[in-house]
Amino acid sequence: MLAVEEAYRLVLTTARPLPPQAVPLAEAAGRTLRQSLLADRPLPPYDRVTMDGIALNYSALEAGQTDFIIERLQLAGTAPVPLSDPRAAVEIMTGAALPPGTDTVIRYEDLDFAAADNAADAAAGRRATVRVLPPRRGHNVHPLGHDQPAGARLLAPGRRLGPAEIAVAATVGAASLLVARRPRVAVVSTGDELVPVSAQPLPHQIHTSNAPMLAAALAADGAESQAFHFDDDLAALTAGLPPLLAAFDAVLLSGGVSKGRADFLPEALRVAGAEPLFHGVAQRPGQPFWFGQRPGGAAVFALPGNPVSAFVGYYRYVRGWLRASQGLDLAHDNQLFAELTAAVDFRPSLTYFLPVALSAAPDGRLLALPAPTAGSGDLAGLLAADGFLELPPTPTHFAAGSAWPLWLFREM
Amino acid sequence: MLAVEEAYRLVLTTARPLPPQAVPLAEAAGRTLRQSLLADRPLPPYDRVTMDGIALNYSALEAGQTDFIIERLQLAGTAPVPLSDPRAAVEIMTGAALPPGTDTVIRYEDLDFAAADNAADAAAGRRATVRVLPPRRGHNVHPLGHDQPAGARLLAPGRRLGPAEIAVAATVGAASLLVARRPRVAVVSTGDELVPVSAQPLPHQIHTSNAPMLAAALAADGAESQAFHFDDDLAALTAGLPPLLAAFDAVLLSGGVSKGRADFLPEALRVAGAEPLFHGVAQRPGQPFWFGQRPGGAAVFALPGNPVSAFVGYYRYVRGWLRASQGLDLAHDNQLFAELTAAVDFRPSLTYFLPVALSAAPDGRLLALPAPTAGSGDLAGLLAADGFLELPPTPTHFAAGSAWPLWLFREM
Repeated sequence: MLAVEEAYRLVLTTARPLPPQAVPLAEAAGRTLRQSLLADRPLPPYDRVTMDGIALNYSALEAGQTDFIIERLQLAGTAPVPLSDPRAAVEIMTGAALPPGTDTVIRYEDLDFAAADNAADAAAGRRATVRVLPPRRGHNVHPLGHDQPAGARLLAPGRRLGPAEIAVAATVGAASLLVARRPRVAVVSTGDELVPVSAQPLPHQIHTSNAPMLAAALAADGAESQAFHFDDDLAALTAGLPPLLAAFDAVLLSGGVSKGRADFLPEALRVAGAEPLFHGVAQRPGQPFWFGQRPGGAAVFALPGNPVSAFVGYYRYVRGWLRASQGLDLAHDNQLFAELTAAVDFRPSLTYFLPVALSAAPDGRLLALPAPTAGSGDLAGLLAADGFLELPPTPTHFAAGSAWPLWLFREM
Repeated sequence: MLAVEEAYRLVLTTARPLPPQAVPLAEAAGRTLRQSLLADRPLPPYDRVTMDGIALNYSALEAGQTDFIIERLQLAGTAPVPLSDPRAAVEIMTGAALPPGTDTVIRYEDLDFAAADNAADAAAGRRATVRVLPPRRGHNVHPLGHDQPAGARLLAPGRRLGPAEIAVAATVGAASLLVARRPRVAVVSTGDELVPVSAQPLPHQIHTSNAPMLAAALAADGAESQAFHFDDDLAALTAGLPPLLAAFDAVLLSGGVSKGRADFLPEALRVAGAEPLFHGVAQRPGQPFWFGQRPGGAAVFALPGNPVSAFVGYYRYVRGWLRASQGLDLAHDNQLFAELTAAVDFRPSLTYFLPVALSAAPDGRLLALPAPTAGSGDLAGLLAADGFLELPPTPTHFAAGSAWPLWLFREM
């Protein structure tokens, strides 16, 4: 049977970059950038004052002068006026552009002021004495272009736009950005035992839960989704699937992929034009996973119906496919690892996705406490877990203290 | 000056639980649950078949019988019909309710079938031979109530609703849920040097960046925000602030809280009725942070204007306040720690928030590579970091290999 890594590799071969679209900056957070972002001006764009105090020429201090007449007050956001007397100073505020003729700022804390005369300008006529000499010319000035030259590439395509990226885009005046279109995903549940959440199930029926779960996971991962339900019936499936395979970027199905009498999905998918890439992965839970593609159309993830299996399938396969389709720079994704806090034995020659409760040790280790569910139908058992530890087919004994790849389904 | 931990404690004293509101399940993802969620029925609600195969009575196997006539086929979602002959079997599918009179399921892989007669029911008239005996009575059956009894509390108030919680809510038929109302936050920028993102700045002006940054961070944390800009002018601030302090749960300001000539905010806030809890925290960056509260109204975070300082302030103080206000069970939040990959020296007696690039070691450790910015104005420098490491005022030498609290601003 196919190994997990090989299955994932095949899944990723079907990810094609979604087309870019322009969105206003205010709607770009969480999306994936599909353009480069260049510095429009040097950063900072002027010699930027970083402390409230006075701006002066360092040469005057070098010549032994410590007493300065203040020519004027300059607030942030006002055009700088050149210093007229090289032995004078300008009272100046954080964020202001350094006035020509000055090169150094002395902060208030290092100054003594003589009482102000009642001059027209609140600052003019005052004198300041430098009590603590600055260590160097240019002190408390963030010089023009220090961080980045004009034209520098600040962001490359493939970056996920978080608050820091949004702030940088704002700084360079990018009022709109090219981002990847959101993936459009059809979520299809099958299974005649399922009733909608708002309906009262008969004793042998259950509420549908995979569709709401997948919709929530997709929304958190930046995809748009729409829910469909089909009866376990070959005719219903072969009629219902083709429009979805043509209209969506991906179709996620759950249930109907075992070898049971009512598991028509693989056949229905073939009839609908989806070519299988694999059926079955050497893993537990989630072994009967079917994956295929309509050439030129949707990727099709037919996940097992058991909720824990569907959940593992989403986080191990679907999520990476969504990221790749958005053109996300996967090199920026950290593969996390966590250390088992207790030994685990698992004998079948399958990759075992072990639910674990995560904690963080003060020494920087991520610790994974095994929180196995009572089988792949024990959805409520997942509430005690934060993610899955991926334990490979060999060894069969996983010692306490050993670390393994971690797939998180909660934010840390 | 106030220590970081004490400042954070004071911030949390102002967090009052936001009122609950009912939302449809499809809109509940990401919100904080404000009710208990009980199992509506036992979980599973019936003896649930976990494999495709045949259901039979284990006593027949114990009596030495291995050959079974199949009475009928039972699909998932159909009402179970009792076995009429205790020596017969029912062909049965995963997810179906176990028929009365049977207690054990043998999966297809462990059976041989005799060729089907052309009976009306596809299954009736067939015979199956059990090739591999099950290890025990009840094999491949997930018994009624095994996971949870009816009425069991599955979720407590304060749980953040992720995909697993949404799925469990669906399972118990919770078509709507009580969640905390989203926090409403006013984002106020001040600073006469700022121009909107879409405007062309003069040489001594810059684009506003803190407001878009805070809006993006707030949205990611489940809050609603609205942006305002005030000139650095006492009259403008004292007129503009009171309506915000009355209408919003929190007001985030950036800039205007240093001791400069144009830093009217602390005075304007007092005039507007906000009582200060502190002004200044022993940290870098972000020392001039002012925090207060309008009694019965908004919490007021007046963050420094430098973008790196404002960013640190958001992740260290505002985020936890938002979580507490939503009634989020903070015990579920893991305080992360990461290990320095290089030594860092920081002499001032201040908590130092060091930007770090994060990576994950295969042994489960989180590694923090120092990525200091060129001062608190170097917004673009944050693009190389994933979070801040919180280095306390003492020691002044932080050795490579030592681990410290981590505040992430990117998803891992």
